[in-house]
Amino acid sequence: MAERGRGWARAVRGLLLDVSGVLYDSGAGGGVPIAGSVEAVRRIKASGLKLQLCTNETQATRESFVRKLRALGFDISVAQVTAPAPAACHLLRERGLRPHLLVHHDLVPEFAEIDKTNPNCVVLGDAAENFTYANLNEAFRLLIGMEKPVLISLGKGRYYKETDGLKLDVGAYMKALEYACDIQAEVVGKPAKRFFESALAELGVPPEQAIMIGDDIVNDVGGAQQCGMRALQVRTGKFR
Amino acid sequence: MAERGRGWARAVRGLLLDVSGVLYDSGAGGGVPIAGSVEAVRRIKASGLKLQLCTNETQATRESFVRKLRALGFDISVAQVTAPAPAACHLLRERGLRPHLLVHHDLVPEFAEIDKTNPNCVVLGDAAENFTYANLNEAFRLLIGMEKPVLISLGKGRYYKETDGLKLDVGAYMKALEYACDIQAEVVGKPAKRFFESALAELGVPPEQAIMIGDDIVNDVGGAQQCGMRALQVRTGKFR
Repeated sequence: MAERGRGWARAVRGLLLDVSGVLYDSGAGGGVPIAGSVEAVRRIKASGLKLQLCTNETQATRESFVRKLRALGFDISVAQVTAPAPAACHLLRERGLRPHLLVHHDLVPEFAEIDKTNPNCVVLGDAAENFTYANLNEAFRLLIGMEKPVLISLGKGRYYKETDGLKLDVGAYMKALEYACDIQAEVVGKPAKRFFESALAELGVPPEQAIMIGDDIVNDVGGAQQCGMRALQVRTGKFR
Repeated sequence: MAERGRGWARAVRGLLLDVSGVLYDSGAGGGVPIAGSVEAVRRIKASGLKLQLCTNETQATRESFVRKLRALGFDISVAQVTAPAPAACHLLRERGLRPHLLVHHDLVPEFAEIDKTNPNCVVLGDAAENFTYANLNEAFRLLIGMEKPVLISLGKGRYYKETDGLKLDVGAYMKALEYACDIQAEVVGKPAKRFFESALAELGVPPEQAIMIGDDIVNDVGGAQQCGMRALQVRTGKFR
């Protein structure tokens, strides 16, 4: 067992870490770090392992997300964060799509360079309080009016844990629109294979030399395994 | 064909009519009757056919719903309306369930006699503007905190037509909660077999002598056919 353990560890050159529920619990005032996580990140970096944060966070731009993490004590740069909004922008450009955004106010700047006139798709993020009936209905009407409705969802999480309790995640609203329009959303972010692949590309490490660590059995563990990575589920965050 | 037509018509003793999209389009100021529908109801009643309205309307009590229809010119009584909220109250009593209500404000009086302390289930109706993120999250937290979550949905419609356009219906929000909690809702109202059966019981007519007329292929037509009734889909309302 000891031999096997050492061999396994020796082959690992990169770590992908989920953030919410692994490094911190989000919430009012920026949230709180999970016990030991600041020190863990410091030691990972000191060990020479490559580190990339692989998050479905869509309530803030990567820049403000990193500012928040740094304020909590994590020594992280913007380049070390793989997040759904930049991946969605890449896809929108690639396919000439002009989005109607149903996202959190603080995420909107990520789409500053994207043409949003006369929308031919809907991009759905974790809009939280922005998920009013009027806003969801507006997205629904746009989709049902399209000849071929295109719904791009920045993740498909069921819920996540904030400091004051569990919160509905974007996946629930994705399901609402899928059902109302009888369509299937395209998911950007975890567990999409392409998303993990771009995180690995940032890391410069092949999947068999990387480990994903997260609190979500589907989005973190399942997604990473489909990419040929090993994965670990932590017992913090939304783990029940 | 003529013989067959006559024989078919002769066997019909009762009509079940959907309301929204068949008799009227709902909307601001009470909505507007669909052309010819007031006269059609008058003639059905004059013909001696029995008539029952079979609606998934959950934005008002049956009493105020009937007041609205009468103001539009329909000669209808409360006893001629089969609606989900009274059916849900029956089920709640039968099973000793105490609901948390996520419904339209105007529907709340239907549940006046029901014990709502310390909820052990969630009842979901077409809450419209009440479908805020906070309210949906509250229902979600109650459900996810139950040992065996019970979600009762007053219908599972995708959308309906109001005078100012299409609106998301309760079914979309039902799917959101089903997905978030990994559960299956129990549907009261169309297309539930039990709901059609109680409408037929009100009518006093067996299924083979009744016809359901509606604008929804799943909830009206499919539901009625599963009950052994014939059904017709109109081309008004949400028909596309």
